[in-house]
Amino acid sequence: MSSDHALGRALLAPQRIAIVGASDDPGKTSSRPLSYLRRSGYAGTVYPVNARRQTVLGEPCWPSLAALPERPDHAFIVAPTDTVAGTVEECGRLGIKVATVLADGFSEAGPQGRERQERLLRAARQSGVRLLGPSSLGMVNNADRVILTANAAFAEPDLPVGGTFAASQSGSLIGALVSRGRARGVGFHGLVSVGNEADLGIGEICALTLDDPRVTSYLLFLEGIRHGAQLAAFARAAAARAKPIIAYMLGRSAEARELAVTHTGALATEADLADAFLAANGIARVGSFDALLEGVLVLPRLPIRRRGQRRPQVGVVTTTGGGAAMVVDQLALRGIATVAPMPQTVARLAERGVRVEPSRIVDLTLGGTRYAVMKAALDVLSSAPEFDLVVAVVGSSARFQPDLAVKPIIDSAGAPTPIVAFIVPEAPAALEQLSRGGVPSFRTPEACADAIAAAWSRRDPPVRAPRAEAASAARRTLDELESYRLLDRLGIARAPGQVLGPADAIDGIAYPVVAKILSADVPHKSDAGGVEVGIADADALTAAMQRIRACVASHVPGADVSRILVQPHVAAVGEALVGYRVDPLVGPIVMVAAGGVRAELYRDRSVRLAPVDLDGAREMIAEVTGLAALDGYRGSTPGDLEALARAIVTLSTLADMDEPAVLEAEINPLLVKARGEGVVAVDALVVIAAQP
Amino acid sequence: MSSDHALGRALLAPQRIAIVGASDDPGKTSSRPLSYLRRSGYAGTVYPVNARRQTVLGEPCWPSLAALPERPDHAFIVAPTDTVAGTVEECGRLGIKVATVLADGFSEAGPQGRERQERLLRAARQSGVRLLGPSSLGMVNNADRVILTANAAFAEPDLPVGGTFAASQSGSLIGALVSRGRARGVGFHGLVSVGNEADLGIGEICALTLDDPRVTSYLLFLEGIRHGAQLAAFARAAAARAKPIIAYMLGRSAEARELAVTHTGALATEADLADAFLAANGIARVGSFDALLEGVLVLPRLPIRRRGQRRPQVGVVTTTGGGAAMVVDQLALRGIATVAPMPQTVARLAERGVRVEPSRIVDLTLGGTRYAVMKAALDVLSSAPEFDLVVAVVGSSARFQPDLAVKPIIDSAGAPTPIVAFIVPEAPAALEQLSRGGVPSFRTPEACADAIAAAWSRRDPPVRAPRAEAASAARRTLDELESYRLLDRLGIARAPGQVLGPADAIDGIAYPVVAKILSADVPHKSDAGGVEVGIADADALTAAMQRIRACVASHVPGADVSRILVQPHVAAVGEALVGYRVDPLVGPIVMVAAGGVRAELYRDRSVRLAPVDLDGAREMIAEVTGLAALDGYRGSTPGDLEALARAIVTLSTLADMDEPAVLEAEINPLLVKARGEGVVAVDALVVIAAQP
Repeated sequence: MSSDHALGRALLAPQRIAIVGASDDPGKTSSRPLSYLRRSGYAGTVYPVNARRQTVLGEPCWPSLAALPERPDHAFIVAPTDTVAGTVEECGRLGIKVATVLADGFSEAGPQGRERQERLLRAARQSGVRLLGPSSLGMVNNADRVILTANAAFAEPDLPVGGTFAASQSGSLIGALVSRGRARGVGFHGLVSVGNEADLGIGEICALTLDDPRVTSYLLFLEGIRHGAQLAAFARAAAARAKPIIAYMLGRSAEARELAVTHTGALATEADLADAFLAANGIARVGSFDALLEGVLVLPRLPIRRRGQRRPQVGVVTTTGGGAAMVVDQLALRGIATVAPMPQTVARLAERGVRVEPSRIVDLTLGGTRYAVMKAALDVLSSAPEFDLVVAVVGSSARFQPDLAVKPIIDSAGAPTPIVAFIVPEAPAALEQLSRGGVPSFRTPEACADAIAAAWSRRDPPVRAPRAEAASAARRTLDELESYRLLDRLGIARAPGQVLGPADAIDGIAYPVVAKILSADVPHKSDAGGVEVGIADADALTAAMQRIRACVASHVPGADVSRILVQPHVAAVGEALVGYRVDPLVGPIVMVAAGGVRAELYRDRSVRLAPVDLDGAREMIAEVTGLAALDGYRGSTPGDLEALARAIVTLSTLADMDEPAVLEAEINPLLVKARGEGVVAVDALVVIAAQP
Repeated sequence: MSSDHALGRALLAPQRIAIVGASDDPGKTSSRPLSYLRRSGYAGTVYPVNARRQTVLGEPCWPSLAALPERPDHAFIVAPTDTVAGTVEECGRLGIKVATVLADGFSEAGPQGRERQERLLRAARQSGVRLLGPSSLGMVNNADRVILTANAAFAEPDLPVGGTFAASQSGSLIGALVSRGRARGVGFHGLVSVGNEADLGIGEICALTLDDPRVTSYLLFLEGIRHGAQLAAFARAAAARAKPIIAYMLGRSAEARELAVTHTGALATEADLADAFLAANGIARVGSFDALLEGVLVLPRLPIRRRGQRRPQVGVVTTTGGGAAMVVDQLALRGIATVAPMPQTVARLAERGVRVEPSRIVDLTLGGTRYAVMKAALDVLSSAPEFDLVVAVVGSSARFQPDLAVKPIIDSAGAPTPIVAFIVPEAPAALEQLSRGGVPSFRTPEACADAIAAAWSRRDPPVRAPRAEAASAARRTLDELESYRLLDRLGIARAPGQVLGPADAIDGIAYPVVAKILSADVPHKSDAGGVEVGIADADALTAAMQRIRACVASHVPGADVSRILVQPHVAAVGEALVGYRVDPLVGPIVMVAAGGVRAELYRDRSVRLAPVDLDGAREMIAEVTGLAALDGYRGSTPGDLEALARAIVTLSTLADMDEPAVLEAEINPLLVKARGEGVVAVDALVVIAAQP
């Protein structure tokens, strides 16, 4: 038995469970795990541990873990915060593999709490105990009837079992997922409240279930990215097994990111970084809570799009024009095209007796409420090459004759092209029948479009792990000339430059030029008055150098101001900012933005995990409005966007470079010259890991 | 009895109804109105008219309208398209006031259909019949049991009656509203499918119910803005009676706007124009279908914000941190701040025994599932001055003990500060009890935030009607100098200029200057090569004028190229585009955008109905990223944004100017000088209504 397998058993399917701090008072949270285990018919052994009682909920209880007649696999510690570390140490002494900690007051509770969590983690590591939590509401394994949780939602009997394994950084949410899932015919294999992830993180926990054939998909509720490398490794392994992952992540707003920090101690992740991380790892991120559950069913039908595939196209067939228009609108807002059937498809529809007006939507009107008409339409559309997905939009008939209305859709579920349904009226029976019939279905147009867009925004995860994070290493900032040497080594063109010390003669210079302070002490040259442009002759250069030295010396006292870098002006049709850095949460990333103050105002940028390939870099450029416009917008000279793409690719390969270990590299600006003439860096700032 | 009152009775509460084309086949749409009227216990008289039958659904029927024993108030014409116009004429001859037309094939059906609709409308106008439709599924008056519709959703008996009157441009959607409303405890006073609005539009129809005390709010499902002036007049009247209006409008995407055109023949309205129209008229526009229904209950609690009020602040109290974080996130994404309780509020909570951690959310954790704790928290928060709204977020207890969980909320419904609820688990009973208890409740965080943001984005409608539309008048384009004369009259500063004909001497000019073609034939001067800048002396000016004349003459054959306008260069810290026009759908509008190509790329603009006041103009500037940044962004010289605001106000007053009637006026650019130095127009293009 591999150690992973043993850990998986102890964590998710323990045979012997101790509940430390189990309460006899049914009104208390700490009474719940025992009562839920009993109610659900748990087949293993449970040992309530409570030093102050003889019995708990009518069962005999033990005074301590040490007093138990045999060694449990898993201890659920529901005792108060200040007793937890000691109990974990005791687990270690007794050889108990896994401890789940319910108490809060750890990393989410200020400096004192963070220190308490550090101590707890040390205790676990030193005693060889793996930890779920703290602040975990526990774990539920519906498939094996292990309802080991303090979440009140699991008081509900007979929860449906399904193929989805859910993990949540918010413990209360696993309850909402179960009840909302039940209403929609979505059952769970299991659910885990991961709490603060002090030790076991979402990635490691989910990975333990990868080889369980009963688990077919994953659902994550995230407040932030923690243990990013483990999460990425799990996502790669899941993709290799074609087990899709869907995620809802709080923190699109700064307010929620701040809340995540105070709520679970998660580090804040900027929204676009998190998006880049999830997309690059093949995880579908939905933006709405409904789409999280509804999307679980649609993901397996919409595989990750490969590069070179055409942009996906949706066909919409409906009995209600207004309902269909809502779906088209919501899809379009997310960049997904609904297309009209091609003439040959319209002809095939007519052969089957379905005559429709030429339109972006196939509107069957009331005729579509008849089985034969809807079935014929779905047969034709779901085998037409122009569609990658068919959305069936059903009106009132879904409410009054759910069997009849959804039958043609369910009968078409095996068609070559995937089919999903949006049900316009209130029609819970129709939605449930569709789920049971294997047709993903949606109760709002927003969730429908959200889930589809999330599925198609996924990328194939990289086949190998990114390099180990180095963000916490000591840092050394290179000056501009040293930074250029790195660009030279990478093969990214940069402006030539001449270094002038205080005593150097000024000659052999072709004007006009730019003069800049050259000093590792002054990474932000402009802010310190260290840059002058448009210098026309030697006299002006002499004066400029004097001003620069005086100005920088007063802005950055003690800075070395001896050297000035003189560079020629470079003509260009546009400018970009290209950056690379190793993010502490998501690892190496590459970023490109339009140059200039305006672009910054508009946050006009694109971020990807590094490295990226040429297609990836082209996609990034296309996402940046100000750069995409360099492709000859309104008759202007087209810029060399291919050279820009190559520079992005090259810079992103820093993720694979070991010596020096680059922590940050920013080229700002990278000038984009006319098409065919390349790009050229006219400033660069590199930070490397310092030698130990 | 006023004619409006009579029309209202005939349209919405007829005593005698004729159904022309009533079918005996229960499978046919045209059989439905009779059957629904009977099923619902309609108290008036119904006359089925069908020349080919003696009876319909077991009732005697009449061969023609003329054969009826008395005159109906209202004829529902469910007969085929090509018979409709003739039937409407017959209605006119017989003195029937209102005809509802079910058939489609009119303005949505290409040029032929549009012509057919014109003929139908002429027939109605000439014969004095008011028309609902064509392509209307009819009208439902639940309150008076007049179920006069062919929408299958109304086969359902005992629909709940409420205070909301709904009007929809999509006929099928009224069915979805009824079923979804019923599930959430939202009943309707009535619902009308307005079809193509050839004659009666949404505004006029809804206005007929304004004085009915049973109607307390309005819900609109829109595909586009039609009869804009009537809709605005209705909205003003509704605001005066404190009857709120909520709207969902398709067409945020270009695709959906195109679909709206083909679907109902509506003209496309750009999304931000439509937003401006709805907001200015006090109509709350939600972005999601769920929020349309859920928002109906929240609107009366969140009155229109007045200028000078602080930005609204939300307090969130919860039993589940994750659920509350979702609401905070969604509110923040819509620009609405969730704020922490002030210290004195925290102290008052403590006095009531509610001790909470300092945070943006008041997290009661499991303690909040007890009545006394939640009630105490709501008592304190709903009387604390820092909150304009309190959102109660309820977890699992809402599912298992709905009575207990929602009781403290319902018991707080009369508090000074409005309270709404978001229910995290699947808990239909809790949602229904909240609705019944008068507490607006939401089943997703997205709809919750959407409805709140929509309510608070409304403005007080203008007290008077905007001027009559003149967009269809003949147009005359003024040249730049004539356009400047309008600016001079308004008092908007513009650059001085000297006009040079071919024979004029070039002297007395202070260089550098700009030279531009001056010709009403050339409204787009740059595109035609008609502008040269940076002209340094008289020789350069001579050469530039030659080039301009040659270039324009070749670009615009036949254009008058005799005159050149010479203007000095004007120094400025930024530039804006300010425009006014009379939109055919929404009326006079004023727009401001950041200047330059970049701003155009980013669609960085703000639109309002004209006229606006100074506060409105300041709001517009704040909405434009590139202009807001002129307020000294990153140490740059601050621009005179107050002068820009005054210029916007001034240009917007064109809405009140009768002579000349200005159809369009664009100042591009309007240069923004340093603070205190004003703004100056350096180009202008005005289009006026030509004299008849």
